[in-house]
Amino acid sequence: MTVPLPDWEPHYARRASRMRASEIRELLKLLEQPGIISFAGGIPDPALFPVAAAREAYAAALSSPERAGAALQYSVSEGNLALREWIAGSMASLGVACTPDNIVITNGSQQGIEFLGKLLLSPGDTALATAPTYLGALQAFSACEPRYDELRPEDGNRTAPSYRDAAQAAGSEVKLAYVVPDFANPTGETLTLAARQRLLDLARELDIPVIEDAAYAALRFEGESVPPLQALDIRHTGSIDRSRVIYCGTFSKTLTPGLRTGWVCAAAPVVRRLVLIKQAADLNAPAINQMVMLEIARSVYESQVARARGHYALSATPSSVFAQVARARGHYRAKRDAMLAALANYMPEGCTWTTPEGGLFVWVTLPDGIDAAALLQRAVAEAKVAFVPGGAFFTGGTGANTMRLSYSLPGIDSIGEGIRRLAALIGEQKG
Amino acid sequence: MTVPLPDWEPHYARRASRMRASEIRELLKLLEQPGIISFAGGIPDPALFPVAAAREAYAAALSSPERAGAALQYSVSEGNLALREWIAGSMASLGVACTPDNIVITNGSQQGIEFLGKLLLSPGDTALATAPTYLGALQAFSACEPRYDELRPEDGNRTAPSYRDAAQAAGSEVKLAYVVPDFANPTGETLTLAARQRLLDLARELDIPVIEDAAYAALRFEGESVPPLQALDIRHTGSIDRSRVIYCGTFSKTLTPGLRTGWVCAAAPVVRRLVLIKQAADLNAPAINQMVMLEIARSVYESQVARARGHYALSATPSSVFAQVARARGHYRAKRDAMLAALANYMPEGCTWTTPEGGLFVWVTLPDGIDAAALLQRAVAEAKVAFVPGGAFFTGGTGANTMRLSYSLPGIDSIGEGIRRLAALIGEQKG
Repeated sequence: MTVPLPDWEPHYARRASRMRASEIRELLKLLEQPGIISFAGGIPDPALFPVAAAREAYAAALSSPERAGAALQYSVSEGNLALREWIAGSMASLGVACTPDNIVITNGSQQGIEFLGKLLLSPGDTALATAPTYLGALQAFSACEPRYDELRPEDGNRTAPSYRDAAQAAGSEVKLAYVVPDFANPTGETLTLAARQRLLDLARELDIPVIEDAAYAALRFEGESVPPLQALDIRHTGSIDRSRVIYCGTFSKTLTPGLRTGWVCAAAPVVRRLVLIKQAADLNAPAINQMVMLEIARSVYESQVARARGHYALSATPSSVFAQVARARGHYRAKRDAMLAALANYMPEGCTWTTPEGGLFVWVTLPDGIDAAALLQRAVAEAKVAFVPGGAFFTGGTGANTMRLSYSLPGIDSIGEGIRRLAALIGEQKG
Repeated sequence: MTVPLPDWEPHYARRASRMRASEIRELLKLLEQPGIISFAGGIPDPALFPVAAAREAYAAALSSPERAGAALQYSVSEGNLALREWIAGSMASLGVACTPDNIVITNGSQQGIEFLGKLLLSPGDTALATAPTYLGALQAFSACEPRYDELRPEDGNRTAPSYRDAAQAAGSEVKLAYVVPDFANPTGETLTLAARQRLLDLARELDIPVIEDAAYAALRFEGESVPPLQALDIRHTGSIDRSRVIYCGTFSKTLTPGLRTGWVCAAAPVVRRLVLIKQAADLNAPAINQMVMLEIARSVYESQVARARGHYALSATPSSVFAQVARARGHYRAKRDAMLAALANYMPEGCTWTTPEGGLFVWVTLPDGIDAAALLQRAVAEAKVAFVPGGAFFTGGTGANTMRLSYSLPGIDSIGEGIRRLAALIGEQKG
């Protein structure tokens, strides 16, 4: 007996209609072909992975029956205590004095962002975000069916009453602000101290939490560090448990994304809620990976915690610069320099781009009328160059003439050659 | 300047009110003290963990720069292809012919269950489940704010119109059925073939998907295997892509829970949706753990896949019994026997309990009027014995006189002694 193929659509929850097929990530699979110079990925360079430290740490975690019994067993939902202590020490060095009770371990910062959507957003609620912003955050929030409004911390936010009125007019309420303050995905830009203060003022007036996505924060090449929003808010309120800023951190960009280890640092009541969400979501992060990440962090970070404990400096001093991170900074800086030089050399008039002081991305704005999605088709087919069209990073259908270029994976020579080919194609389209 | 501690409650989404503090899991932390004989846990015995295989597999995954580059990098959201192929072969041996397109890797089966709630349940929708049922599934679903109705596949479900009318009267719609058909958490009971057929008939009449939580299915000690619901449904419909059954599997109970590796097996369109949900939730499962789990499975499972390919027998034949699983079965069977013998020896009249043919749990019903939660307080304080009061496994506030006993962790002698002490206390309460 054969039954027709069922139609699953009517069975799905309402929120499923907001789960967009991520054309970008699907695209990425095609773009990472050999022979293509890809500026699309935005993933760390495996040349930087701490392979030896990882090998030793896994062997150590499985070296005795007792250790293995813990490494291969279920574990607590909040995460490994020693790892949370280490992270608390590392947060202290950024100006965020906190304890392990302020930390929950997540599967990368992506899971932290998704949990925060779940915790804070009812359907129809308003989330404030820059446009463009990190696509993964939009995907995570969208399952909660929010409305978005635009944050402009650098060029000038609207007033609190204006955001509030716009939400009210849509039958909504402003519930959170989300930002990537350092070397943002996708623009590479960093919020100035003044912009951070304005954003915190706005959040206080609106009485909303601020989600600080710090994925790239440790990868500064040059210029002066700006304190995390959370550190600035603690300066204002007196303590982490009085702060409205919720910090999402990760080891993915500095050490390795393969262990999927990130964290959320926040007021203790928020962390307790997130632990419940973690429990319902997947019980706990893999015990062995947490043990290993702690050992890797300890081994590559030059006893940074010991030095950080007790002095909560607001800016990253040379003494809190870690060996591994220093290596990553030098590595990506050279690649960024190659990309900026090639852009200056080859790009036709009418194109502009950002100058990131860190991170993995340059954001290019093409002359009006050039569609980056259409350009990508030709770039892959004719020039063997890939990038991510910028439109995906906007919620409102704008940004067709923008693109995100990542310099993290290609070699220095390929960066120059890829930009040369891409620029030639843009010149043709323009002309 | 010091700001008062903020009240976070008004900031939370509506669904947060349904995220219950898991008293049980909090309790468990206290109960796993040394000196306590704990029947509370329900976690696998670390004596069974494949430590040597894990050690070798991690070393191999990090043995060359190329392998390490993949093991420590981001990876695809659907999961490692070779692992999905292996799982597809293993599903075939259970009567579920499928391809890797029918498999998505999740962080244990818990994450699969949570994703399915997200995919299928809008607020107010009705989920059918047995009472009692797995607490973790209730926690996962509850974030979607469902209504529950009771499934009784063994003693007789109500009619489809009755479930439909009850839902309608509550302004709701029946959207899914969830069951743990084999050696269920918490009762240890297994659905007969007839009960499975009745459940599938009901699901067809209601036109709803059935979530089959197979966490314990491989741990049968005795009696005849009953085919998975998914295999039975495929017999009826002709193929996995025509089946309404969604299977949640895991390596947690047979190999190790510490790598958090499970899977969902379902019709390809459902799997494509789950991949999107995985992407938004945490991008992907740890690449290294998936590589390692594949190697462990290969090394301990005696080339079971090769034999299974091509013949889709509906019952587990001796030739598809794996060495590691056979070891686990013998190990837990001896512990179950010890517990059943002690219950028969010591329990006062008026107590009844289940006789599990596999898995980790025995479910005890105490005489009416004995409150298991109150008993637990005394059991821990006076008898140094712990268990889980059964009420937590019910959605409706019933089950106060029930308790879940797990025999998985204590040694055989401790099992006898613990039951003796517990029975004495129950005898006192009764008398």
